[in-house]
Amino acid sequence: MDAARILHEAPLTRFAGVLSSAGSSYGKTIAEAANLTDRHTTALAAAQARLAEAGLPCAMRSFGSTPAVRHARALPGITEVRCGIYVFQDLFQAGIGACGLDDVALSVLATVIARQPHYNRVVIDAGGLALSKDRSTAGHPFDAHYGRVCEVETGVPVGDLAVMTVSQELGLVSSLSGAPIALHRFPVGTRVRILPNHADMTAAAYDTYAVVAGDSRVRALWPRINHWS
Amino acid sequence: MDAARILHEAPLTRFAGVLSSAGSSYGKTIAEAANLTDRHTTALAAAQARLAEAGLPCAMRSFGSTPAVRHARALPGITEVRCGIYVFQDLFQAGIGACGLDDVALSVLATVIARQPHYNRVVIDAGGLALSKDRSTAGHPFDAHYGRVCEVETGVPVGDLAVMTVSQELGLVSSLSGAPIALHRFPVGTRVRILPNHADMTAAAYDTYAVVAGDSRVRALWPRINHWS
Repeated sequence: MDAARILHEAPLTRFAGVLSSAGSSYGKTIAEAANLTDRHTTALAAAQARLAEAGLPCAMRSFGSTPAVRHARALPGITEVRCGIYVFQDLFQAGIGACGLDDVALSVLATVIARQPHYNRVVIDAGGLALSKDRSTAGHPFDAHYGRVCEVETGVPVGDLAVMTVSQELGLVSSLSGAPIALHRFPVGTRVRILPNHADMTAAAYDTYAVVAGDSRVRALWPRINHWS
Repeated sequence: MDAARILHEAPLTRFAGVLSSAGSSYGKTIAEAANLTDRHTTALAAAQARLAEAGLPCAMRSFGSTPAVRHARALPGITEVRCGIYVFQDLFQAGIGACGLDDVALSVLATVIARQPHYNRVVIDAGGLALSKDRSTAGHPFDAHYGRVCEVETGVPVGDLAVMTVSQELGLVSSLSGAPIALHRFPVGTRVRILPNHADMTAAAYDTYAVVAGDSRVRALWPRINHWS
């Protein structure tokens, strides 16, 4: 209340509103995340009411955290949902049930540059620089190492193929189960899409989004702003 | 020899020369790395001589790998040293003895944004996006987690302070030994430099180098080319 009054009364600032982030929705069930969202929206409404009683105008109620927003039953009175990872989703979010695998809307286009039957693997031209070295899925039952491998046109995962390890420029693709890869499907030059572990870190490696819709034709190029602070 | 001849005789290609990379110099002692370099330069000279005998002009002898170049006694006949990490060096290279800590010529400028005495730590505004999530020093006796913390003006490491963990935007600084941090030296707003684990991955997060020389004044801005393929 004191902070809001100071901001409201100072000549160069304006008190805009209240916000919360339901960060503890990570690791919760869908019902628990939804309940958490209800508690947050109720608390934000109560805060706004108290501020209004004290004569402090509070135009905004801002709410965030991907699982909490994704599983919200409703967002009453919320004027801003802070867009985080749920713009794109990723393998971590799919793993915790915040989305399905086919909701992941960011992928890295890569090309097969070698086949290594004796290692049951395929080499692609996307490594740590292309995918990031984020390992957010590590230690989870849905561990995807450095990303899941998908058909280039449809974006559908190819079996349980994943980028198992990366060096700076290269990725080594094998199956999560260790089952033999159908190597004849991956001649050198084959293009694939890699779904990322952690979309934020992967997107930060690029200055442009190439927009596709249902196939591999690029419909638009959207610039990104890349700064970490 | 056959490959060189095909390149030499084909209308649209030119055979330029021979190259090698002494990648196995990693993990070697200084003397072993130097011996390896001698073997490579001798082998490249022999290859060039054989090609010349066969009427195949071989103008270039190209050689690479940071420890092998760094510890070379000489590079006779080498026309190109492929510049890798030894342009900047990093904590991994310092750890394996390919350089000293004070040879590391790339750092990330960061700012203290919180002090947390109860955790014996300082929070900085540089996390995975600023430093990369590369953990090349992991599992080594010189493990530096996500980077060593240095004085902003001199670049000298501050005790054994390191960025112990990162989230996307934040780094948590503590001492590698667990010894108490002199928190009074780090009021909020203090600037520090972070030496990277792996310079390549860290540099890839930026589109410009800010060039300094002995203090924190920026003398020039050098653009980078950022593409992973």
